[in-house]
Amino acid sequence: MSEAYVHGYHQRENERLQDQAGTLVDLLHADTAYPGGSTVLEVGCGVGAQTVTLAQRSPGARFTSVDLSADSIAEARRRVDLAGLANVELRQADVFAPPFDAESFDHVFVCFVLEHLSRPVAALAILKGLLRPGGTITVIEGDHGSTYFHPDSPAAHAAIRCLVEVQREAGGNALIGRQLYPLMVEAGFDAVAVSPRMVYVDSSRPDLVDGFTRKTFTAMVEGIRGSATTAALIEPERFDAGVRALHRTTEADGVFCYTFFKAVAEKTRRA
Amino acid sequence: MSEAYVHGYHQRENERLQDQAGTLVDLLHADTAYPGGSTVLEVGCGVGAQTVTLAQRSPGARFTSVDLSADSIAEARRRVDLAGLANVELRQADVFAPPFDAESFDHVFVCFVLEHLSRPVAALAILKGLLRPGGTITVIEGDHGSTYFHPDSPAAHAAIRCLVEVQREAGGNALIGRQLYPLMVEAGFDAVAVSPRMVYVDSSRPDLVDGFTRKTFTAMVEGIRGSATTAALIEPERFDAGVRALHRTTEADGVFCYTFFKAVAEKTRRA
Repeated sequence: MSEAYVHGYHQRENERLQDQAGTLVDLLHADTAYPGGSTVLEVGCGVGAQTVTLAQRSPGARFTSVDLSADSIAEARRRVDLAGLANVELRQADVFAPPFDAESFDHVFVCFVLEHLSRPVAALAILKGLLRPGGTITVIEGDHGSTYFHPDSPAAHAAIRCLVEVQREAGGNALIGRQLYPLMVEAGFDAVAVSPRMVYVDSSRPDLVDGFTRKTFTAMVEGIRGSATTAALIEPERFDAGVRALHRTTEADGVFCYTFFKAVAEKTRRA
Repeated sequence: MSEAYVHGYHQRENERLQDQAGTLVDLLHADTAYPGGSTVLEVGCGVGAQTVTLAQRSPGARFTSVDLSADSIAEARRRVDLAGLANVELRQADVFAPPFDAESFDHVFVCFVLEHLSRPVAALAILKGLLRPGGTITVIEGDHGSTYFHPDSPAAHAAIRCLVEVQREAGGNALIGRQLYPLMVEAGFDAVAVSPRMVYVDSSRPDLVDGFTRKTFTAMVEGIRGSATTAALIEPERFDAGVRALHRTTEADGVFCYTFFKAVAEKTRRA
């Protein structure tokens, strides 16, 4: 994770990640559970938004959750302690220089990390080296190009393209969700199975309107206003019109769609 | 359905609709079943691609399937007879002048029809009048703006926008899937519940690569080459490059995504 983290490390971003994990937890995590006694490496745990969910859902598994940022690890430790979890070890580490023995984990879990890396296949290959033969890797990523909504708005799409461009200039790929299958095949994993996790939001689901459309996605777009306008990617007026159009989708007749992708794959046992 | 039908009535189109129904049948129809003895109006049945599936899945229900085109009804009758179904009555009818008594059906089913109408809410209101209080309506529509793929291609998106534009000029709306919730609320239905049905295709699913990406979606885009280039919506070379890019997504490292939307709603019983 030797990359600039495009979303920044501010308090509001922490709240955004927490909102995201809160409203999307079932959609993303309901089918992930690890057997008692198994060891799981969580890479890029950030402030622990997914860590708490993972560890609660697999109380018999032992998690090692790592992040490049010491500050994030400190916040994650606070959250893990607050949740009373005793099955999580937290430590600062770089996925490109992991302080672990080869083939020392039964499972690997990666969520919202590959999107920020310029060499995602290299990272996946390193993680494959840390997995025991017969182990699994689970990867969850978003895809900002999966976003569409009603009423439609060219300005909103332009603002979203700025987010994609800002992330690209930082070395990342905001369209990585759709690419998980070929990336994991290229990294040498077997039995790669990808499933889309689409968030469909209309006004019959006010929790998602507020928790996802407004406080997760639109907040994320608003968060790059400074970098997008400073880099002259867009006129400030057009960016603001785009943000207003995203808020417009939260009204009674509005609809908002976004898709995450979840991939599960195996490291084949030796013949 | 007093509208031009943008896809035409040719043999290849018939095959395309049949391929579509064949590979997508579970995704779209698995949760639709009507009780024995209930009466169901299927509007815009076309050549009967959905009719056979519907009637087989609800053998005790009685279906009345209508279409504006006498030729389509004749073909649908052939298919219904071939499937040995005795619970389907077929007749030529216009949804805007339906030859039925008010409140004479228990359920209404509409699939790939509203996208071709310039007044979808008016059609839905008419169908509501044909429903008994307490009855349900089921609507399934696609949304061409939900399409994205890997490798990405501006030319492919431009070709898809031609399809949207050709359909718009014929009075239809190829982006209607995402709008089902507000349209059905506006038409006066209650308990409107919309669920997306996303088709995710990678090379681990060769049936979908061939049946959906190639023979359904890309074939549909190819089918409007003449009207799009004649109307000068796009340069022929760019259109062809877009079609090639869509075929490129069917290779081993390609991915293709498209989403249908299914809405179920009720006509409230009188208080």
